[in-house]
Amino acid sequence: MTEPDVQGLQRRLAEFAASREWQPYHTPKNLAAALSVEAAELLEIFQWLTPEEADRVMDDPETAHRVADEVADVLAYLLQFCGALGVDPLAALSAKIDRNEVRFPVGRPPGRAARTSKEPDRHSTE
Amino acid sequence: MTEPDVQGLQRRLAEFAASREWQPYHTPKNLAAALSVEAAELLEIFQWLTPEEADRVMDDPETAHRVADEVADVLAYLLQFCGALGVDPLAALSAKIDRNEVRFPVGRPPGRAARTSKEPDRHSTE
Amino acid sequence: MTEPDVQGLQRRLAEFAASREWQPYHTPKNLAAALSVEAAELLEIFQWLTPEEADRVMDDPETAHRVADEVADVLAYLLQFCGALGVDPLAALSAKIDRNEVRFPVGRPPGRAARTSKEPDRHSTE
Amino acid sequence: MTEPDVQGLQRRLAEFAASREWQPYHTPKNLAAALSVEAAELLEIFQWLTPEEADRVMDDPETAHRVADEVADVLAYLLQFCGALGVDPLAALSAKIDRNEVRFPVGRPPGRAARTSKEPDRHSTE
Repeated sequence: MTEPDVQGLQRRLAEFAASREWQPYHTPKNLAAALSVEAAELLEIFQWLTPEEADRVMDDPETAHRVADEVADVLAYLLQFCGALGVDPLAALSAKIDRNEVRFPVGRPPGRAARTSKEPDRHSTE
Repeated sequence: MTEPDVQGLQRRLAEFAASREWQPYHTPKNLAAALSVEAAELLEIFQWLTPEEADRVMDDPETAHRVADEVADVLAYLLQFCGALGVDPLAALSAKIDRNEVRFPVGRPPGRAARTSKEPDRHSTE
Repeated sequence: MTEPDVQGLQRRLAEFAASREWQPYHTPKNLAAALSVEAAELLEIFQWLTPEEADRVMDDPETAHRVADEVADVLAYLLQFCGALGVDPLAALSAKIDRNEVRFPVGRPPGRAARTSKEPDRHSTE
Repeated sequence: MTEPDVQGLQRRLAEFAASREWQPYHTPKNLAAALSVEAAELLEIFQWLTPEEADRVMDDPETAHRVADEVADVLAYLLQFCGALGVDPLAALSAKIDRNEVRFPVGRPPGRAARTSKEPDRHSTE
């Protein structure tokens, strides 16, 4: 059995939706909303946990399954969104890391803003 | 030059964070929150657009770049979240599609609930 | 019977949480996450609907109840978040409208940015 | 000067949108998306903070202003969403607290599910 890869998964997702006639619902706007909803469902697992409890979340088999299931949903909608708009997610991330290596040189302190409210790499608006 | 793959990107993200000493912030709970925030930033691009305008979003180079950039951010936090908890995102999605093929047989109408409020595959709680 | 008001609801929510010993979970960070999760649950109702279907969502009593219920959850966490940090939500909104009336004078076209990607009042960073 | 109340704020928001001809964008679906995006922007302030740092977030005037500003945005879209669909948010929350007082009697332990993954009152699907 071969490892699943991103292109193969995108193909399976497209065939799955097509054979059930779900494509009319899979508009870019709807998929962006669904992605956001699934990411919130993943966050929901963690919302009342202390940082320590959150770190041990995979120790409970039922919660571990739920985490993997929500990860799958987030990735499914991300790949379908990318398929609908012709975005290559791996190339997009690779290019973003390239840019961030220039923007955030190693050894330079990130400054106060990064510390108190957000991480430097959060700023996507380049 | 080789194509980026998921494992390679995960490794680059881990090295990027380690060399800048950002790992203390990259707890599972924080990464789940960051993933959700980035997914909302992607949705923000579409929030006031009609379905038709949303379909043409890649025609404008600036908006196309913004979309790819937010896709990169979502994928970056998803991969880092998976790295922190030892989840294999491709295997999780592959297993989920396997399950959904059983749950939603082709040719069976999804029923009213699926139509009015949510798609059948939205229910992750199996 | 009197109309519920914001202060009265905040008081009831605080008593409800205190008598069940839920306050340790109601930290500002957790409440901000919970608010975001509830807002996504409200969005979930609409994610696969056309704009026309979305406009008629209150015609179905079951969906109408679900909408009201999610609105209640969003408001509950917003009020509890404000209570935890001492923010007056009505005063904050009133002040924001005051500022926006200066920033977006009537009769001036909002420009292209407002049209394609976001509404002018979306920019909170003044 | 009188205290702002919910009805008065809803009226001001409606007049603000009408005089700028923004109502065509303010569909229920778009407002639900915008509400979710704003809630994520509030969460963004907290995403990299420890629970202790999050508790002190109002000590810094700039961050305190940012928090109040995002609270205003969340409330603005919640009220506009409710206006578009004819939902009374205060009545919805009051009815929800009534139901929750029956569902979660004082003195009964919430059980394991409530503790590990979610709070009892998170379940809106009654």
